Amino acid sequence: MAMAEASRTSEARRDAVFGRWVIFSPARSRRPTDLKSHGPANPSPGDGAPKPSCPFCLGRESECAPEIFRVPAPEASSPWRIRVIENLFPALRRDAEPPAPEEGEKPVGAGECAVRGFGFHDVVIETPRHEVRLWDLDAEGVGDVLLAYARRVQQLAEHPAVKYVQVFKNHGASAGASMAHSHSQMIGTPFVPPSVTSRLNCMKEVFERSGECSLCEIQSKDILVSKTHNFSAIVPFAASYPFETWIIPRQHSSYFHEIDQDKVSDLGSLLRSMLQKLCKQLNDPPFNYMIHSAPFGLSSSCLLYTHWFLQIVPQLSVTGGFEMGSGCYINPVFPEDAAKILREIDCSI
Amino acid sequence: MAMAEASRTSEARRDAVFGRWVIFSPARSRRPTDLKSHGPANPSPGDGAPKPSCPFCLGRESECAPEIFRVPAPEASSPWRIRVIENLFPALRRDAEPPAPEEGEKPVGAGECAVRGFGFHDVVIETPRHEVRLWDLDAEGVGDVLLAYARRVQQLAEHPAVKYVQVFKNHGASAGASMAHSHSQMIGTPFVPPSVTSRLNCMKEVFERSGECSLCEIQSKDILVSKTHNFSAIVPFAASYPFETWIIPRQHSSYFHEIDQDKVSDLGSLLRSMLQKLCKQLNDPPFNYMIHSAPFGLSSSCLLYTHWFLQIVPQLSVTGGFEMGSGCYINPVFPEDAAKILREIDCSI
Repeated sequence: MAMAEASRTSEARRDAVFGRWVIFSPARSRRPTDLKSHGPANPSPGDGAPKPSCPFCLGRESECAPEIFRVPAPEASSPWRIRVIENLFPALRRDAEPPAPEEGEKPVGAGECAVRGFGFHDVVIETPRHEVRLWDLDAEGVGDVLLAYARRVQQLAEHPAVKYVQVFKNHGASAGASMAHSHSQMIGTPFVPPSVTSRLNCMKEVFERSGECSLCEIQSKDILVSKTHNFSAIVPFAASYPFETWIIPRQHSSYFHEIDQDKVSDLGSLLRSMLQKLCKQLNDPPFNYMIHSAPFGLSSSCLLYTHWFLQIVPQLSVTGGFEMGSGCYINPVFPEDAAKILREIDCSI
Repeated sequence: MAMAEASRTSEARRDAVFGRWVIFSPARSRRPTDLKSHGPANPSPGDGAPKPSCPFCLGRESECAPEIFRVPAPEASSPWRIRVIENLFPALRRDAEPPAPEEGEKPVGAGECAVRGFGFHDVVIETPRHEVRLWDLDAEGVGDVLLAYARRVQQLAEHPAVKYVQVFKNHGASAGASMAHSHSQMIGTPFVPPSVTSRLNCMKEVFERSGECSLCEIQSKDILVSKTHNFSAIVPFAASYPFETWIIPRQHSSYFHEIDQDKVSDLGSLLRSMLQKLCKQLNDPPFNYMIHSAPFGLSSSCLLYTHWFLQIVPQLSVTGGFEMGSGCYINPVFPEDAAKILREIDCSI
């Protein structure tokens, strides 16, 4: 395992996608791998039998909120391979009346506004088996999970009051997962979320200045971890978190949910390999991943500078008042060092 | 202790200071106080004797990084009451060469940039005694800590390369504190941090539309917790976190460090009372507080809409991929309910 380059000193970097400053401070940890997780995110995953208390397991479908669709298993051993269901404790409610377009936002005070809690909150159960982690599936299996995301996002995009869908996965309790059984979630919101607005503003500014899409431009070898025909996996130049990685389509593309069958298999194999690398090199840490796509109904001029990507963030450090107050993160691991460590471990794509 | 109002349903709110959307979803916890901390942030604070391993304790001054200044104790029992020292593991380095104004930001790619890691990272030791928490001091003692912040920020403001100083306190390991001995920190940065830029942009937009400063306008009784002659403590209308509170000067004021002696005593008593309320009602949770002030050298027209405040955030819930990806927080406790619960417990001001 590689040591950090001893010669590095503190540096502040601003990225071209979120426009955020990040402080790289190698003095705050001795070696990058000092940060590895102290224990696996989900200890004792069990012996393969359904867990009596887990409603995501095969045979317990009736304990869940309604199913939206399922992906059948090819063999007869299981009636399904993936299920997309409603969240039993939704953050936003599909049965609330959506805000009428003309009503829009109800002003409460200067600048403040409130809207009804309309929206969609769905769960993707990635496997019927309790002990299987996403990266234990084969590449095609991971690709099918991604295809289920895309299919559900496509359905939500057709609702006139849904402005954005955030697809995300929480793995491990300290990363926000309340269920150990492998699953992802998506929330469709009646507004464009704050980080999406600031990402679009930043990418627009870069495009207006340079004529280039920020993410089409990322090609530095230093921070490349892995590459397939259609995707690159990198540690971003100004990663906010240690060992954060991004998987980016190599060809310009604004919407994740427009991905085709060919590309989704390719993405499945790269995502699987990246999760295996994190698990092996950092001791199965809790992590989150998020798909950053474009809000629905963008004009064609905006499509020139929006480029979707998937961000993976292992939970290796605690954030405190500085990060919460300033929005500026302190990262003890330089992206070049993190990329080297992740390149070193071989995981088949 | 009050129950949540059973009739509330999900709502999304946007605030007038950060311009962030927050989802209020009471369905995700049964009662607001279900969220209270499972155990104290700093268990077994000890018996009052200096802890042999703690360099912040009285008599161990030589184990710390250099002292910047100290506030003497009025009685002879201790040579100091407050010490402001350098951080032994600084995120930014005061000995790095500051970026020259004309050099500014070194472009690396389209939109990306990097600067040397110049800056200041200081620690304020709030008491010589290991077992004393900030809110165990009397109101004057808390005021003196705030005055030490103001004095050090004033010194840093005079450095031409320092653009902003983030003052913050981490209490408890899960809130990012690596030392149990009561202390705060401040980081002076050679750039304006991301959240400061977006806060100023949002407050400017509100001012241009309404002619009013967002924070001068906050006067709703629903969300008021406590008030003194000079300050209001509220739960903000679109609080990102459960039981988040803000202490706001009632009179328009852009810079925290310009606070005078009269007002600092008043602020000390209100901060002390708010921390006592959190500790009593929520079982001594880990927390962060942050002072949100204006960047240095603003034009007089910007001073009209910038208004400093102190934000207190107890750590009661885990954030996951949705929050990290979208920048939109899910808060299970409506601000009106949180304010009621905090008003109910009596803590002397």
